[in-house]
Amino acid sequence: MVGFFQRTLRLRTALRHLSPHSTFSSTATAGRPSVDFCRSFLPTTSWQSGVCCRKLHSGAGGSDPAAAPDRRPFSRITLEDLAFFRKTLPGRAITDPDLLESSNVDWLKSVRGSSEVLLRPQTTEEVSQILKYCNGRNLALNLQGGNTGLVGGSVPVYDEIILSTALMNNILTLDSISGILTCQAGCVLENLSMYLEERDYIMPLDLGAKGSCHIGGNVATNAGGLRLLRYGSLHGTVLGLEVVLADGQVLDCLATLRKDNTGYDLKQLFIGSEGTLGVITAVSILCPRKPKSVNVVFLGCETFEQLLETFQLCRGMLGEILSAYEFLDSECMRLLNTHLKLPNPISACSFYVVIETSGSDPTHDGEKLHNFLEEAMNSLLVTDGTVATEDSKIKALWSMRERVTEALTHEGFTYKYDISLPVERIYQLVTDMREHLGDRAKSVVGYGHVGDGNLHLNITSPAKDPALLAAIEPFVYEWTASCHGSISAEHGLGLKKRNYIYYSKPSQAVALMGNIKAMLDPKGILNPYKTLPDDLK
Amino acid sequence: MVGFFQRTLRLRTALRHLSPHSTFSSTATAGRPSVDFCRSFLPTTSWQSGVCCRKLHSGAGGSDPAAAPDRRPFSRITLEDLAFFRKTLPGRAITDPDLLESSNVDWLKSVRGSSEVLLRPQTTEEVSQILKYCNGRNLALNLQGGNTGLVGGSVPVYDEIILSTALMNNILTLDSISGILTCQAGCVLENLSMYLEERDYIMPLDLGAKGSCHIGGNVATNAGGLRLLRYGSLHGTVLGLEVVLADGQVLDCLATLRKDNTGYDLKQLFIGSEGTLGVITAVSILCPRKPKSVNVVFLGCETFEQLLETFQLCRGMLGEILSAYEFLDSECMRLLNTHLKLPNPISACSFYVVIETSGSDPTHDGEKLHNFLEEAMNSLLVTDGTVATEDSKIKALWSMRERVTEALTHEGFTYKYDISLPVERIYQLVTDMREHLGDRAKSVVGYGHVGDGNLHLNITSPAKDPALLAAIEPFVYEWTASCHGSISAEHGLGLKKRNYIYYSKPSQAVALMGNIKAMLDPKGILNPYKTLPDDLK
Repeated sequence: MVGFFQRTLRLRTALRHLSPHSTFSSTATAGRPSVDFCRSFLPTTSWQSGVCCRKLHSGAGGSDPAAAPDRRPFSRITLEDLAFFRKTLPGRAITDPDLLESSNVDWLKSVRGSSEVLLRPQTTEEVSQILKYCNGRNLALNLQGGNTGLVGGSVPVYDEIILSTALMNNILTLDSISGILTCQAGCVLENLSMYLEERDYIMPLDLGAKGSCHIGGNVATNAGGLRLLRYGSLHGTVLGLEVVLADGQVLDCLATLRKDNTGYDLKQLFIGSEGTLGVITAVSILCPRKPKSVNVVFLGCETFEQLLETFQLCRGMLGEILSAYEFLDSECMRLLNTHLKLPNPISACSFYVVIETSGSDPTHDGEKLHNFLEEAMNSLLVTDGTVATEDSKIKALWSMRERVTEALTHEGFTYKYDISLPVERIYQLVTDMREHLGDRAKSVVGYGHVGDGNLHLNITSPAKDPALLAAIEPFVYEWTASCHGSISAEHGLGLKKRNYIYYSKPSQAVALMGNIKAMLDPKGILNPYKTLPDDLK
Repeated sequence: MVGFFQRTLRLRTALRHLSPHSTFSSTATAGRPSVDFCRSFLPTTSWQSGVCCRKLHSGAGGSDPAAAPDRRPFSRITLEDLAFFRKTLPGRAITDPDLLESSNVDWLKSVRGSSEVLLRPQTTEEVSQILKYCNGRNLALNLQGGNTGLVGGSVPVYDEIILSTALMNNILTLDSISGILTCQAGCVLENLSMYLEERDYIMPLDLGAKGSCHIGGNVATNAGGLRLLRYGSLHGTVLGLEVVLADGQVLDCLATLRKDNTGYDLKQLFIGSEGTLGVITAVSILCPRKPKSVNVVFLGCETFEQLLETFQLCRGMLGEILSAYEFLDSECMRLLNTHLKLPNPISACSFYVVIETSGSDPTHDGEKLHNFLEEAMNSLLVTDGTVATEDSKIKALWSMRERVTEALTHEGFTYKYDISLPVERIYQLVTDMREHLGDRAKSVVGYGHVGDGNLHLNITSPAKDPALLAAIEPFVYEWTASCHGSISAEHGLGLKKRNYIYYSKPSQAVALMGNIKAMLDPKGILNPYKTLPDDLK
C-alpha cells in the first residue's frame, strides 16, 4: 500500500503525467458513425408501395416484443400529397433516396424504416400546415430531431413521412438577467451551449450526443445526461413549449416565466412523450450561470461499495459544487483502451469515477476538492486518481466516460439497457447478469450516472444472437422490476421497449396514457408504433 | 454619506443591535387566524337543503368574474350516504357544524362554503372507497389539505363534501442515501422539515404557511415559496405521486427514482391541478442535504434598480450558495412596524432585501458573503444592512419577509395579487397601480420573490370596496398580460381567479385543460367551480 503522502503527491502530480495523446484531443461528440454500410439494403421504392420495416436486429422474430407490429392502415403517399408538400416547403420536401438514407436508419444501425419523403420545415406555421394536411389525409409522420436516440424512436418503422426539425434552428431570445433562453426546436445542443457560454450562461443539460441532438428531441425524450445531478430534470428547467398538435393546432405554452400557476401545466405532457402527442417547435429553458471554476477528478476504487461510500463523502464535502458523479467499470476501460486507444489516466482499478465540480470561486472549490480527496485517500476509499482544471484536460478525462458508447460499437453487436435503480443496487445487476450469462456474452459492462441511480448495462456479442437475447430478456426486466426500478431511465421506450412498459408502470397508468394519446392524436398519426405498447390500440 | 469602513463596521455589528424583542421570537408560522368571528354567519342546516355559497367579498355581485357560478346539479347528501360514510370511516365522518366551521371558511375569511359533511380518511383505500361511492352517486367533493390557500380553492363553494387529508399524516420511508422521502399527503410541511433536519436533509420547499399546509396540498397547488430559486419547482423535485382518480381507481405513480422515462410522466398532470383531477394520497420527493452553513442578510436599497443590480451582483458573487433573494417595500415595513410591532432591523430605506445563503463550508460561505457585501457597499448599491448566522436571529430576519401577509390582515380588507413578470418589470406594476388608484386605496404594497420574478401585490382598504375592486381589475390583469406575465405565479386560480385564466393562457390551452378534466373526472365531482373558467362546462 502506498503511504498517504505519496498518494497525495500522486494525485497532485498525476495531471502532469497525463500525456496529451492525440486520442484525448478528439472530442466525445465526434458525431455519429456513418451509415453508408446500409445503402445496399435500400429497397427500390415507388410512391404507391409500402415497404415493410426491416428491423436489423429483430431477434426472436414475430414473438419478439421489440419487433414492429403490423403496419396500421394509414394512407399511402400520393402524387397529390407530394405536390402539396413541395408547394408548402419549396425545395425542402426531399424524395431522393440517397438523401433519405441517413434519416431512415438510427445511429446504432439497429432499426430501419422505409420512408420516401423527408420534410424540412423552417417555421411553426409550416409544421402546422403539414400536420393539418396529414391529419386530414390520415398520413403517418415520424418526428426526427438529431436522430441520436437509442430505442428506435427517431426513425420511421414503415413508410411514415419523416418530419425533421433540422432547419428550425434559430435562437429566438436570451434574457440576460434571468438566463431564460428561447429557441426553435431544431437547435443543436452543442450550438446552444456555445452561444450561452459566450454570454456567461450554460445549458442545464449535457450529453454525449450534444454535437448532433436537437433541443426539441431532448425535450421530447426528457433527456437526462451528465448535469441532471446538479440542475435537475427538464420537467423543472423547461419553462415553456410551443407544440403543434396532430390536427395542426398550435398550442402556445411558450412562457418565459419561472412561475405560472394558471391552470394545468400542459407543457409537461409533451416532455418525454417521444413525439407521440405533438411536435415541439420551440422551447424556453432556464439556464444556469456559467461556473467560474470547473474541476474534474478521475478516481479509481477497488469495490463498488467503496465507490458508493466515496459518493456519500463527496456529497457531504463538495456539497453545492458537485455537478457530476459518473462511473465506469474495468470492462469499459478495457474497451476504451482496445478500440479507441485511450490510455487509462491512472493505474488499473475495478471501478473508475468521474467527479466534476462547478462553482463560483476557484480557491474555495480547490480547497473543498483537496479536503475531499485527502479524506477519500485517508479512509482508503480511493486507490488512485488524477485532477484536471484546464479545459483540454477536463475534456480528456470526460471522454473516458463519454466515449464508452462509441467503444462498444466496435465490439460487434451490443444489447443496451438503461436502468434506474436504488443507487445501492445498481452494480448488483451487472454482477448478476455476468453470472447469469456466463460465457454466452462477449462482455457485460456497466457505466452510468451513479448520482442519479442510473445504470447503463451493455452486453456485447460478435453478432446478433437470438439465444443470447433470450437469456438477457426478460431476466433484466424482471430483475429491475423486483427492485421497483425503471426499465428506461433516460432513453425512453421508442419502438424497441414499448412492450416492456408494464415492468415499470401499472396497467391503470398505461391505460391512462392511451386515453391521453387518443385525446390528442385520435388518428394516431404521430410517431406510430412507439412508446405505447401494442395492446393499446 | 457614511464612509466605507464605517458602513462595513455597521454591517458587521448591526446584528448585535438587533434586540431580542419578543415579537421577533414568535415564529412566522404561528398558524392561521381564528375564524371564530364567522360562527354567527352559520346557516341552520338540514340534510336535504342546499345552502347557497356566501362569498364574503363578492364585490360586483353577479357580474363579478370571481363570484361563484350557479350550483351544478350534483346530488344532495341523503341519510343513506351518511350511513355509508360512517360505516367506511368510523368516527371520522364529521357532521357537527361547530367542527365543520373552520373547514368551511378559508383562512383569509374571504370565502365560505356550507358543507355539512367532513370526511377524514386515514388510508388510500378509504379515499378510493369514498370516491367510488361519490362518483356513483354524483356527489361533489371539496379536497382540503391545510386550508391555507389564498384563492378560494380549499373550501367548498356550496355543499360539497369536504375530504380532508389531515389524518393521512404518516411518513412512509426516507432513503438515507438518495434523500428521497415518501409520505402520505396530509403530512404538515413543517413536520416533514423537522423530521428531515434530524436526518441531515431538508425539504426542497419552504413557505410561510408551513406550520399548517399539507404536502399533498403543496403538490396539488404547485406551491413555490422561498426555496424555489435554489431547488426549483415541484415539477422537478416531486418524483412520484399516488393519486385516487374520480372513479376511485388508484393510480400508482409513486416511484422513488430520479429518472424514469417509461411512457408519459402522468404525475405531472396532478402537480398544480388544484385537486380538480384526482386526490393526491402520497408523495415521494427528492430532498437536498441539510446545509452546514446558513446566513441571512437584511439589506436596504434606495431604488428598485439598485435592488436588481444587487441581485445580479449577488448571483455572480454568491453563485451556488445563494438560496433566496426576497424583497419588501417600505410600505410593508410600515405595516410590520404598526400592526406586528416588528422593529426595522436597519435604517429606513425604500426597499428591503432578504438574502439567504446555504452552503457546505461556513468559512467559504462567510468569505463569499463578506466579499459580496463589500462590493455592494463600495458600489453604493446598498444603503444599510445586517447579517445573521444564528438560528434565532435568522428566524427574526426572515419574519420581516414572512409575516407581511399577516400584517396585511390587520389593515382591513386586502385585495391580493400574485404576479409573475420579467424580473426587471416587477416593481413597475406596484408604482403604476399606486398612481392609478391614487387615494382610493388605503395602501398599495409590493413584496415577493425577486429571484423568481414573482411579485405579491396587495391593495388594502378599510372594508371591501366594489368601486376600488373595479379600479384594480381588470387593470392589474391587463397590465400583466401586456408583459406576457402570469396572473397567478404560485397561488393558483381556485374559485376567485378561474375566469381570469385567459389573461395568461390562450384559448386552445384552456380548451385542452377542459378535455383533460372531462377525461379524468367526467362528472366533474372533484373541486367543482375551481381552476377552470365557467365557460368550460
